[in-house]
This record gives sequence, C-alpha cells and structure tokens, in this order.
Amino acid sequence: MSSTTNNDDKQKHNQKQAGDSVLEKSMSRRDLLRLMGVGGAGLLIGATGVGGIMQAANKSLAVATTAATGAGASGDVLPFYGVHQAGIATPSQDFILFAAFDLTAASINDVRTLFQAWTAASAAMTQGTMIGTDNNNLNLPPSDTGEAAGLSPSKTTITFGVGPSFFDGRFGLSGKKPSSLEELPAFGGDELQPEWCGGDIGVQVCANDMQVAFHAIRNLTRIARGKAVLRWTTEGFQRTSGADKQGATPRNLMGFKDGTANPDTSDETQMKQNVWASADDGVPWMAGGSYMVVRRIRMRVEVWDRSTLSDQEATFGRHRESGAPIGSLKEFDTVDVNKKDENGKPIIPANSHLALARGDGSLKILRRSYSYSSGLDNRTGQLDAGLLFICYNRDTSKQFIPMQTKLSRMDKLNEYIVHTGSAVFACFPGVSEGGYIGETLL
Amino acid sequence: MSSTTNNDDKQKHNQKQAGDSVLEKSMSRRDLLRLMGVGGAGLLIGATGVGGIMQAANKSLAVATTAATGAGASGDVLPFYGVHQAGIATPSQDFILFAAFDLTAASINDVRTLFQAWTAASAAMTQGTMIGTDNNNLNLPPSDTGEAAGLSPSKTTITFGVGPSFFDGRFGLSGKKPSSLEELPAFGGDELQPEWCGGDIGVQVCANDMQVAFHAIRNLTRIARGKAVLRWTTEGFQRTSGADKQGATPRNLMGFKDGTANPDTSDETQMKQNVWASADDGVPWMAGGSYMVVRRIRMRVEVWDRSTLSDQEATFGRHRESGAPIGSLKEFDTVDVNKKDENGKPIIPANSHLALARGDGSLKILRRSYSYSSGLDNRTGQLDAGLLFICYNRDTSKQFIPMQTKLSRMDKLNEYIVHTGSAVFACFPGVSEGGYIGETLL
Repeated sequence: MSSTTNNDDKQKHNQKQAGDSVLEKSMSRRDLLRLMGVGGAGLLIGATGVGGIMQAANKSLAVATTAATGAGASGDVLPFYGVHQAGIATPSQDFILFAAFDLTAASINDVRTLFQAWTAASAAMTQGTMIGTDNNNLNLPPSDTGEAAGLSPSKTTITFGVGPSFFDGRFGLSGKKPSSLEELPAFGGDELQPEWCGGDIGVQVCANDMQVAFHAIRNLTRIARGKAVLRWTTEGFQRTSGADKQGATPRNLMGFKDGTANPDTSDETQMKQNVWASADDGVPWMAGGSYMVVRRIRMRVEVWDRSTLSDQEATFGRHRESGAPIGSLKEFDTVDVNKKDENGKPIIPANSHLALARGDGSLKILRRSYSYSSGLDNRTGQLDAGLLFICYNRDTSKQFIPMQTKLSRMDKLNEYIVHTGSAVFACFPGVSEGGYIGETLL
Repeated sequence: MSSTTNNDDKQKHNQKQAGDSVLEKSMSRRDLLRLMGVGGAGLLIGATGVGGIMQAANKSLAVATTAATGAGASGDVLPFYGVHQAGIATPSQDFILFAAFDLTAASINDVRTLFQAWTAASAAMTQGTMIGTDNNNLNLPPSDTGEAAGLSPSKTTITFGVGPSFFDGRFGLSGKKPSSLEELPAFGGDELQPEWCGGDIGVQVCANDMQVAFHAIRNLTRIARGKAVLRWTTEGFQRTSGADKQGATPRNLMGFKDGTANPDTSDETQMKQNVWASADDGVPWMAGGSYMVVRRIRMRVEVWDRSTLSDQEATFGRHRESGAPIGSLKEFDTVDVNKKDENGKPIIPANSHLALARGDGSLKILRRSYSYSSGLDNRTGQLDAGLLFICYNRDTSKQFIPMQTKLSRMDKLNEYIVHTGSAVFACFPGVSEGGYIGETLL
C-alpha cells in the first residue's frame, strides 16, 4: 500500500478545514467563552484572533492560580500549574487511570528530560489541547494519538510522584530520600500480588471522561519510551449520576457511604496539618508536595451479599440507607464512639470500620478513592471488584500506617476485604509555567 | 458483635425516614416528573400519592411502548418491556458490563425459574427501583446490594441471549437450536483466549453510569446462585464528553471514527432486513430477537503509535481528523470504493478497513461496540486495551461471518489488532409485562 496515493487530495482537504480544525484546537468556542469568565481574559475578545485569545487565556489561568484546588477554575478545565499539583485537593473526578512506571533511563539527565517532556504534555492535555505540532504531517507518526480530539478537557488532572525504589542509587539520589518514604510494612491479612505493587514513579490521572484519562496515560507511556516502562495500571470509577452527585459521599460497592470524615480541602490549616509536606519536615524538595498511598482492596462481594443488614451496618458502624453513624439520623451527625447503650455496650461497635478509622479523631488522611471492576478472578470465578484506595498525607509513617495497623488487626470489615496491591509515592510540589514537575529534586 | 445492639434506634430511625427513603424508591421527584412528561401519566398528579403515581407511570411506560428503541422514552429511564429487547436498537449508552454465564442448573425448570427471576430483577433495575422487598430487615441479607441507591436509572438496558452450548442436550432443547447459532469459525490471525470466549448465556448491561451497570451484573450473578455461574465479564466505555457527544460517531482508541455505516435504527425496513430475526427464518422462538456477536479485539497501540499518519489513514480508509472517507471532506460523504486517481489506483485503498467492511454495501450489521482498557498484559508489559466489538444481525452466517472472513484475510488493520475473545448469542425477542425473557423457548 503506497502511503502517498492521494496526498494531494489530503492536503487540499487539510487546507479547507484548517480554520476550524478539531484536532489542532480541541477546545470549542463555548469552552473558550467559559474559560474567559474565569481567566480574566475577556477583554481580549475582539482584539486578537482565537489563537491569540487561547494563548492569553491559558497563560492567564496558569499564572493567576496559585493552588490547583479547583476553586480557581470552572468549566471543564483545571489549571495544571500552581503551588501544589492538581489532583490532590481537587474534588474527585469521575474516573481514574493510575499507572506505575519503572525507569529504564541510564542517567539522571534522561530522567530530567522525561519529566520535562511529561510536564509539557500534561500541561497540554489538562487544558484540552493536542500534544506537539506534528498532527497533520502525513509522513510522521502523529505527536498526539488523537482519541481525545473533540472531547472536553474533562477536568483532567495528572499527578506525579516517585516511589522508594527511585532512590535506590541508580541516579545518585539516595541521600535525598525522605525517611518516611518506605514501602508499607506487611499488614495482617494482606495478600499482595506483585503485579499490583510498587513502582519507581506513580502517575494518577483523573478526569470526567474515561477516554480522556486513557489518552493521557497512553501518551505519557509513549513519551517515556526508552526511559521508563509501565509496571502496572488500573482503572477506577465513581458514580456519574444521581441527585447526590454534587458533594455527597459516594457509596462503595458494598452499598455503604464511607470516607465521610475527610479533612476540609478548603481549610488551609487542616490541609497544612494533614496533607501538605512542609519545609520544616526535613525534606526541602517536598515542601508543598504530599505522600500518596495506593492500595488495591478486593471486596469479597459474594460473601458480603450473604450477610445480614444488621451485620453489614455493624461492620461499617453506619446505617446503610442514610450513611449516618449507627444510632444517629444523618450522615454528618457528630460521631461519638464513646456513647453506650443501656447495657454499657458502645452504640457504634468498637471493631467497626468507622470507630477504628476515626479513633480519637487526631489522625486524618485525605482519601481520594475509586471503585474498580476488573472482570473475574479466574482462580475463583468470582468478581474481581472493590476499592482502589488512594490517600494523601503529610507523613505516611505518622498518619496512614498507624491507622491501617489498627484496622488490619481489628476491623470487622476484614472478613469481607483483602488488600491485593500496595504502593507509596512522594508527590512533588506544583510548578509554575516554565518549570517542570520534579525540578526541586532533579 | 451482637447484631441486635441498637435495633430500637434503627427502627425509630427507619420510621422517621420512611417518607423520603432513598433505598426504597430510588427515583427522585425530579426523575418522576420527567417521566410524567413521557408516560402520559401527568394527569395522575394530585389524584394519588407518589407511590401510586410511580406504579402508574411504570405501567404506562411498560404497556405504551411497543419497541425499546429509545424513541418512546426520555429522561433517564428506558422501558424494559416491548416487542424487542432493549439494548439492541437503543442508542449506545456510555458504559457496558458484559457477562457470560454457564448454567449449573439441573433441570429446565430451574432454567425457567432463573429467567423469571432475572426478568423481575431487570425490570426493577432498569426502572431505577430496588430489587425485592427485604432491604430494611436487619435480620436478612438485603435483597438489593444497594450500591445504585440514589443514582439515576441511567438509561440502563439489560439484554439476554443464549449461546450454542445452551442447546447441548442438558435441557432437552437441542432440537430448537437455530442452525446459524454456532461458535464462530477460526479466522486468520485470531489468538483467542479461553477466558474471553463462549458461554451458555450472555448478558449485555449498558448504562450511563458504570456503578449502575456493575450493580446490575452483580445482582444478576447473585440471583443466579445455584443455577448459573459467571464464565467471564468485561467492562467497556465510550467517551462521555465533547461537543459531538450527541449522535456523532465516537473515535476508537486509535483516534479514528469507525462504524459510521450502521443501519438506521429508526428505519423499520432496514432493521427487519438486517437486525431482527423473522418468523420466516425457521426459528419461531427467535422472531423479533437478534443474533449477537461479541469479539474482544486487542489493539497493538504501541505499534500503531509508531506508524505515520499516512499509513494510519490508509489503514482505516478515512481521514483521521474529519472521519471522511479518503478523498472526501465530510464523515458522511458518499463512499465510492471504485473511484480511482489519475494513475488508476483506488482512492480508498482496496485493503483498507472501510473498503473491505463496506464491500458492495449489501452486507450490513448493527455495531454497538465499546472501548476497553484493562490494565497491562503482564506477558508483554503493554497496555491491554482495544475494542469490545459487539454487533447484532439477523443471520450471523450470512452477515457477520462473510464480512469478517474477508476482513481477516485482507484488512490492513490486522497489522495492528488481534482478536482475543469470541462469543455468539441468540438474543430473545422482548416480552410484555407479566411474561419473562426466554418464554418463547422455555
């Protein structure tokens, strides 16, 4: 098959369509106008062409927003640049595609080049524009794989972190390893499978469109060729419908509302205390970053589905229907784990997931989990489904590990779940335009 | 842990909330009002309570709509009952969860009971109501697993079919097997893996919310306990955003628009000719049903991503950006596979996917495919992603098989794809309320 059979036709075709090319500028005019309302670039309309406005709008978004909390953005675009990486304090999007990479790079220069290229591509993809400039050259592989063309930016966030193995000495960085960045200790009941564990680099892509999330991981993988290879990936979802979509706690695949007690992401004091690493923590390059924990938690749904409602509610410590703590009426009613019934028994069972995860309320982590469904477990013929648990905390050794140690020993929920995957990553602070993710370390 | 610690509290709690129970009636008032606009039950408002209206609305939807084409329904609810099963002529929803089951039932009576129970549960789930009545009894496992509570009915469709092995003699039905219902012949290049092939029963669940689709397969699996077990399941998605969301052909994970040439589902003549089995076809129990083909098609995305735009366009026979046939400007421009350039070469390459799938235009199938992303292939470290190809046709031996035979021999696309799964199912006609799916056979 000749690849030049009808170049003339195609070139003519390309010229005719250049004015409203979907692939070159995947934001629509409507998206653009929405953006205007936010970026403060509205006055530019009429003064420049669409291209100029878009550059100005992107720039304005990039420099005007200091933290990627989602508070400063609207529509379907979240800023990529900021004090913190987007995707941590950002309200959960509908889908996740998580990928762990292992480095094959020979030198720290190659690693640096990789993060620079990833930063440029991520900035483009999160803003809904095509990667690179070679998307209409017939003689080259397109620089963007194209499956997100015409789709919304979908509030995409791309969040990068490095695992303990990143510091194993290959790149002369072992002296910079945070002391709290260690693979998690073995917890009772863990049944970890190597194909869901570890990684030199972790990348969390979240978006409101699964095809857009896939596009991001696929293109990052492609850009990494020769420098890093995929170690594992996993998909996840949240519910995309329902009257309670906005802000309400989603139900997990056991039918319960869980994770109600997250810190308030709009409260900077709570975030500094629980989520953001500080310059005072002894690892200067992590100031403004956060430590991520990923656990693939399989639910034994077949066993769960045979247990009584009473057992199920006692397991979570909540009523199924309302999400309220047992003995209360509403989901956000104050939790009092010390309250007892007339026989002196705690109303919220002491071994319930709620009571144990809450403890005395002093340990907080920022949960950002998704459900997963991944076909059958061919060994058992049962559904391989559950929770892709993700949390961010300031110091995993002081927050997640003590919490999970307690849960793994006593949680009544352990009858119905098994942890099959585990990884930890130090997620870099955010960067300004012109910088690159990882620059404080590399 | 005593399961009766605080029954009193819970009962009080349940009573207080009974009026606006999320779990008992998962449609919101707003959903209800939307439904009213369609079902013609608007006049009932004020005359009965909400419960009465809902029953009336459901009934009205069920009997007023003869074919589940989606044309007669709006909002988030599609009718379950009708001349044809929903999920065939229905415009594609955003997500699919496909499940193949193998029967473990001892008798045809058990099989009949299973389909009756599945019909009742499917009717409830597609209308967004809870399965069964035991959802607040503390001493029983809930009859509905609850993870879809509060979510929208999400245009859920549940479509049932039976595979060739259903007729192997266990249930005395071998004489009723349609002659065209056979596992597909081996096509050149197939690399079928047993874990993605076959099944006594196939169930296609589609919905605009992945959690709602999961809920359906999970509950059908649970209801089947003792009568059927899961053989394989697979998840799929389409894009959920973009200006072209309504009606436009989605891009596949290769970045191209494919499947443009579907028959018009609103044209009853085309549907009768290409999709619906007829009483004249020799299998009376299939009249109004359709034959489904499922193929799991892995894309070698890493190889594809290294090929030039010219090669990619020659492979599909379409321009990537516009979706137009090569040499044309717009996606739906007339395809002329005989048109040649000045050197006498076909403008649309003869071995392109478009030219081969189109042929002389006489063979048509109704495609209803989804993209899938399923982590890594651990043998190669490459993404396991591609197309969950699903089509419906009136006679697989006269439509899909000749088409795929030609494609498997010559399609330039074969360099970049491999078929890893295969199954065929005879999908029953639809039923009226009071009947059950499969009744014409069982």
